[in-house]
This record gives sequence, structure tokens and C-alpha cells, in this order.
Amino acid sequence: MRRCDWNALDEQARAALLRRPAQRAGEEVSRAVAAIVERVRAEGDDAVRALGLRFDGIAPAALEVPEAEFEAAEAALPASLRAAIDEARERIAAFHRAGMSAPYALDTAEGVRCERILRPIARVGLYVPAGSAPLPSTALMLGVPAQLAGCPQVVLCTPPRRDGSADPAVLYAARRCGIARVFRIGGAQAIAAMAFGTASVPKCDKLFGPGNAYVTEAKRQVALLEDGAAIDMPAGPSEVLVIADAGASPAFVAADLLSQAEHGPDSQALLVSDSRALIEAVAERIEEQLARLPRAEIARQALRSSRLIEVDSIGQALEVSNRYAPEHLILALRDARAWLPRVQAAGSVFLGDWAAEALGDYCSGTNHVLPTAGAARAVGGLNVASFQIAITVQEVQPNGLREIGPCAVELASAEGLHAHREAVALRLREVGA
Amino acid sequence: MRRCDWNALDEQARAALLRRPAQRAGEEVSRAVAAIVERVRAEGDDAVRALGLRFDGIAPAALEVPEAEFEAAEAALPASLRAAIDEARERIAAFHRAGMSAPYALDTAEGVRCERILRPIARVGLYVPAGSAPLPSTALMLGVPAQLAGCPQVVLCTPPRRDGSADPAVLYAARRCGIARVFRIGGAQAIAAMAFGTASVPKCDKLFGPGNAYVTEAKRQVALLEDGAAIDMPAGPSEVLVIADAGASPAFVAADLLSQAEHGPDSQALLVSDSRALIEAVAERIEEQLARLPRAEIARQALRSSRLIEVDSIGQALEVSNRYAPEHLILALRDARAWLPRVQAAGSVFLGDWAAEALGDYCSGTNHVLPTAGAARAVGGLNVASFQIAITVQEVQPNGLREIGPCAVELASAEGLHAHREAVALRLREVGA
Repeated sequence: MRRCDWNALDEQARAALLRRPAQRAGEEVSRAVAAIVERVRAEGDDAVRALGLRFDGIAPAALEVPEAEFEAAEAALPASLRAAIDEARERIAAFHRAGMSAPYALDTAEGVRCERILRPIARVGLYVPAGSAPLPSTALMLGVPAQLAGCPQVVLCTPPRRDGSADPAVLYAARRCGIARVFRIGGAQAIAAMAFGTASVPKCDKLFGPGNAYVTEAKRQVALLEDGAAIDMPAGPSEVLVIADAGASPAFVAADLLSQAEHGPDSQALLVSDSRALIEAVAERIEEQLARLPRAEIARQALRSSRLIEVDSIGQALEVSNRYAPEHLILALRDARAWLPRVQAAGSVFLGDWAAEALGDYCSGTNHVLPTAGAARAVGGLNVASFQIAITVQEVQPNGLREIGPCAVELASAEGLHAHREAVALRLREVGA
Repeated sequence: MRRCDWNALDEQARAALLRRPAQRAGEEVSRAVAAIVERVRAEGDDAVRALGLRFDGIAPAALEVPEAEFEAAEAALPASLRAAIDEARERIAAFHRAGMSAPYALDTAEGVRCERILRPIARVGLYVPAGSAPLPSTALMLGVPAQLAGCPQVVLCTPPRRDGSADPAVLYAARRCGIARVFRIGGAQAIAAMAFGTASVPKCDKLFGPGNAYVTEAKRQVALLEDGAAIDMPAGPSEVLVIADAGASPAFVAADLLSQAEHGPDSQALLVSDSRALIEAVAERIEEQLARLPRAEIARQALRSSRLIEVDSIGQALEVSNRYAPEHLILALRDARAWLPRVQAAGSVFLGDWAAEALGDYCSGTNHVLPTAGAARAVGGLNVASFQIAITVQEVQPNGLREIGPCAVELASAEGLHAHREAVALRLREVGA
């Protein structure tokens, strides 16, 4: 891992230090995905099966998971795992429910009632990856808010296993979120199938969930097409920034950096500290822990773009963090809460020594689908509102028209929009104003 | 305007009837915009000035509006217009303030506090078009929520007039929203300048506002670039769908359809009614009112893609509307409020005969930056949250770790993420669990 002293760097070197590994899919991925998207749009299920055979080596004849497979999945799952999924679901649901918006109404003038009402998005599509391992936790993070929003049609796609079945833990988690329909489809073809619809897969209005470079590029492409679908956010490789002081536990900090690094070779883990001793101790612990890690090779690759950054003060560490805008921010500080007001941009924040980032990934209650690649400067993570449409409403009585109509007439005149002015003026004449 | 009977159409004909005029910028616009974006990124202010000279025929030496021009603008504006801007601003602020989210916290287990906190987006850029006419109302619709969110840096770009100055009404509205810095830059070059920053124009994290095909394409392009900026929404041509019953006023309905049509040749105005007599009367009134309209030529072009659709019942009209998902939906019905629960997807809804759509454009209090082109199936219009970041936080005590840690360990094991498991297990050992 590269170590450096922030205050020894000039502006250009600082910018280079905080640059993410390249995000955008290369031209080759982009072209390949465009071909997949076009083919699924034109040929539907046949294309989905042919592409599954080519990329996953398997294409279940029935793309949709049959009822019997759900039952078998539940029976096959260890009781401890079922209990953990149930427990995580409860806390995720509790936190997300507490954050739901309510509709509201306000009389902005006498006789003018303005409102905001909420509707679930009618048709949503969830993608749950299963690359090196299946991710039942992601099924919960997508399924719980969709269920709370009350989306009438929720479908989920997840890649088939070698034997053509879907992962039992993902199926169990999906059912606990009330998801009736799961399809054994992975990759860009799953995204295209949900965006355009096929004979088996219903068309969706908005697509959610993380994925590899192909899935992410497919989401980007269908979001740009007129008959495509909206998407939650462009999800890039995962990242963490840890701010630790001299009192932090080097072993905990090392473990948090490594749990980010094991996600994939393009994950990024940054440590920012005002203590050189802590930085050195963390570097040592990383080597020790790495030796015991099954996914050590992946982690080692990710650690190449990781950084150990020494700063003057914790205040300066916060400046570095706000500039980077990390997906996950750990404040391993003696007075972590006191520093929270200084956090300007981050996806999710972990306060103190006991809040391992992995707790947020699974079961603290917050969502783990979060903005990456600096997107935290402008957007937040997934929540129930991501599955809802906010619609404004205005109801105007004749007295309300008399009250606010002249203002509209004046502004429409200034903007040279005569039909706008007339639509109001005509009504004003009718009510004798 | 094309008239048709919904129930005489087959599925294919219905889909064709509700298709919007083509949205995506053609290859030519896309290439031209890419060149502009690249040039502004590379050459900064020099490129902005050169492009302004080429496209607007004018390039103010100082891109930023000087303080004296703000003062002159306020002095030059008629008192009635100043009062109308102030009045509209008050109602827009009242409605938007009432809809602001609050931070919240929930103990999801003993010793586990989860929160959602809100931060203003640090640097936002607003674009206010001035094509056929300046749009002070748009300055309010963007400036008011930015001010309520408390964004520390707000800049506004608007095309210069022939004499190189900015429109006085736009300047006045900007100042009433506390916007300190306004730049006389229009088109794709304004979007690029705010996305990347130049010597004069500060770089922004998120860009807001409507615009022509070039502006919209520029927003789309900078949103895809890694060092670009987030955007509010892809804003296409404006549209209205009116549902009217036999008791509706043909003159009001005609005026509302025309006020949509006068926006531009690619605007769309649809009428859906269960009364053939009403449809015929509206068609007549449109011709009468059109004769008196200064922007009749634009409106006539837009009316070519407009439709008068006869249905069996108001229930069926709502089905047509939900399928189309209009930006503006007018319910010119005797019992408009009773039908509101049936609205599933729309940007803003106008209830009854007196709620002219133009009132929402200017001063009812709702925002007029709304989803077009069917985007209302998945997103709502602009509000204060569009200018905020929601950040989740978790604070965990040792007892909280004992409470939820084992659940994370179980799930991390199932997902094969060993470093995740270890980051929690290590801490559990430390607290003796």
C-alpha cells in the first residue's frame, strides 16, 4: 500500500492521489453490451437463453424459478442462515420504514390547496449478482424498500448456478420480501430483459441493484434509451475511507480496509490519520490478516490502488474525505460523533471503533446500495423514496383564482407566453375578477 | 388535431397514438455538443467566449454579471413585475419548505443507533433558458429550493441578450433567491462550463434546469463523464394531458391545450374525454383562440402531434393517462378530487376547472421542473431534496455489537466474504462475545 504525507504534496499530486481507478467501461465492453441489449430487445427469451448458455454455460429452459424450487430452497437452508436473514430483514425494514416520507398538503393562498402525494413505482426490476458468491443481503437491500413502497410488480433476476437453479439463500430472502417472481438470468441480458420485457420477463419502469462492469454498462445504456427504463444509480466498484486517530485499534482498521479490498480488484480502501504510528501499525496488521484470507489475491490487487495518508489533524482528514466523497466513511475516532457535523459528502458513515463497515453491509438497518465514485457529492443511497413517485397536486377554487391569478398573468406577460396568460385571464373574467 | 376513438384502436394503434415525437437528439446534435463540451473542458473561458460569439452573436468580455447590472436591473423592472416575482417566490418557498425532509434516528437494536442526516449539495449550477423569451419563473423554480436546501455555492447561467446584458427579470429573481453569481452564458457551453469549471465559472457537483436540444444533450453528456456533474433529470419537450367530462368548459380546456402547444413545435397536448360533444366544442374553441395568438405558428406545429381521444368512461381515461404518464395532468371533471386516487403516474396534477396549468407554471407553489417523456413513471419533479444529500449513519456500542454482530457473521460466511466476517468477529472477541 502506498504511504504518503498529504502536506508534502502539491495540488496536482493530491488530485492524483484521490483519483479512482478508471470507472467507465472500455469501448469493448460498451460495444459488447450494446449488442446484447439490442439482441434481447429484438429476440426476447430466445436471446436471453442463448446468451446465458454462452456466458454462464447454462440456460434453464424455464427462466422463471418454479414454486417448488422456492420450497426446496427454504427446506435446504440451514436454520441459522434463515434466522440471520429474518433478523437482518427486520432491522432493515424498521430503519427504512421510519424514514418514509408522508404526503403533505398546504394552502398556499385561500382557495389554493397544494399537495404532494406518493405512489409506488408500478413495475420495478431488481438485480442480485452472484459472481464469486451469491448475495442474499443484496436481495434484502432491494426487496425491503420495494415492499415498503408497495410496488405492485416486483421481479428479481439473479444468475443461475452451475446446475441451473437459483441460489437458495437469495430465493429465501426474496420471498421474505414478498417477491413472487424470480428469474434465473444474469448479466447484461437480465438488465435488457427487465428494461424491454420478454415473453417471460415483464417490462419494468425502473431497475435497481449492483453488478459487474457488464451489468453496470447495460443499466447505463437502457437508461438512455427512450423505451428503456430508469435506474437507481450508476454503481461502480466499492470503496471505503477510514479516518483513524492514535487511539484507534490497528487490528480493527486493518480488518475494515481488508473487507473493502476483498470485494474486487478495483475496490479502493483509504486510511487517513494524523498518527504515523497508527498508520505503521495498520500496515503491519494488514499483512498479518492478509495471510489468513481466502480471497487474499483479490485483496492484494485492490490494495495496489489503496492509500495510507498522513495528515496534520483530524480536521484536515475530514477535508480530504469530503473532497473524495467516499461510499463508506469510518470515523475510528475517540469522539467520533463530535466530528459528524463536519462530514459533507459520504454514502454511509460508521461512528467509533465498534461500527464495523460490515455491519452496515448486512444488518445494522441502513441500506448497502450507496453512491460510489464520488457520486456521494450529489446523491444518497437507496431508500423507500427510490421506489416511489412524488406527484404534486393543486386544487384551485374561484376565490383562490382571484387571489393568485393576477400574479400568473403578470409573469406570463413578462415571458411573452400569451396562451398561458389567456388560460388564466379567461378564467378570471369568468369569476368576475 | 387528430381525433380518434380509443376503443376502435387495436393495441398497436394505441401504442402509436401515445408515442411522443422523437426525443433523442440526432447524431448531428450529439456530435456538435460533444465538440463543444470537449472544447470548453480544454480551453475554458476562451472557448466559452468564442462559442458565445458563434451561437449567440455576442460574447461579453466579462462573463459574470457585475454588481451594477443587478442594481440597474432592479431599477429598470416595472414595480408590478417585481411584485409578481416576490409573490410567486413566497408561495413557492412556502410549499417547498413544508415538504422538506427532516433527519431521523432509530435504535434498531439496543446499542445500535441508525440515522439519516441531510447535507446541502456543496456546489450547484442552475441553467435558465432565454430562447424566445426570458424565464424569470424558472430562476425561481431552481433558486428557491437551492436556497431552502442551504447550498453554499449556487451559480446561474443564462444566455446574454443582444446587447450583452442578462435579462433584468431573471437577475431580479436570482437575487431574490440569494444567488450571488450569475453568468451570461447560454447553450451547451454553459452546461460544460459549470460541469468542469473555468477560470470564471466555478465547477459544480450537480446541474439543474430545462433547455433546448443542445442544452439537454450537453447535460446528458456531462452526466456520463467521470469528472462531469450529476443532473436533475433529462428534460424533454413539455406536455399536457387533459381529462375532461361533458360538464367541462370547452374554452378553458382549449386554452390549457394551447398554453402547452405554444411552448414549442415539439410540445404535446392530449385531450381524453368520454364526451364527443365536448371534444368537438374544444376543437372549435382551439381554432378561435389560435387566431388571436401571437405564437400561433409554433402552436400550430405542436398541434400536429396532439390528439383528441374519445373513451368510454372517465375510468378508461385514467387508464390512458397512467399509460402515457404525462408531465402535466388536468382533471377537468365535476368530481376531480374523487378521481385523484386513480392517478398512478404524472408530474403535476391540476384538479377542477379553475386550476389552469399556467398557475402551476408560475405561482401556485409547486415546482414547474417536472418529468417529461414518460419519466413520470419512475421519478417526480424538482424539490428541496433534489438539492440535498441524504447520508446514513450508524453508531454501535459494545452491547450493540454483541446484539447484531452474530447476524453479520452468519451472513458474511454464507456470502463467502471472510474479511467481512473477520472485521466483525475480531470485535466480538474483543468484547468477549
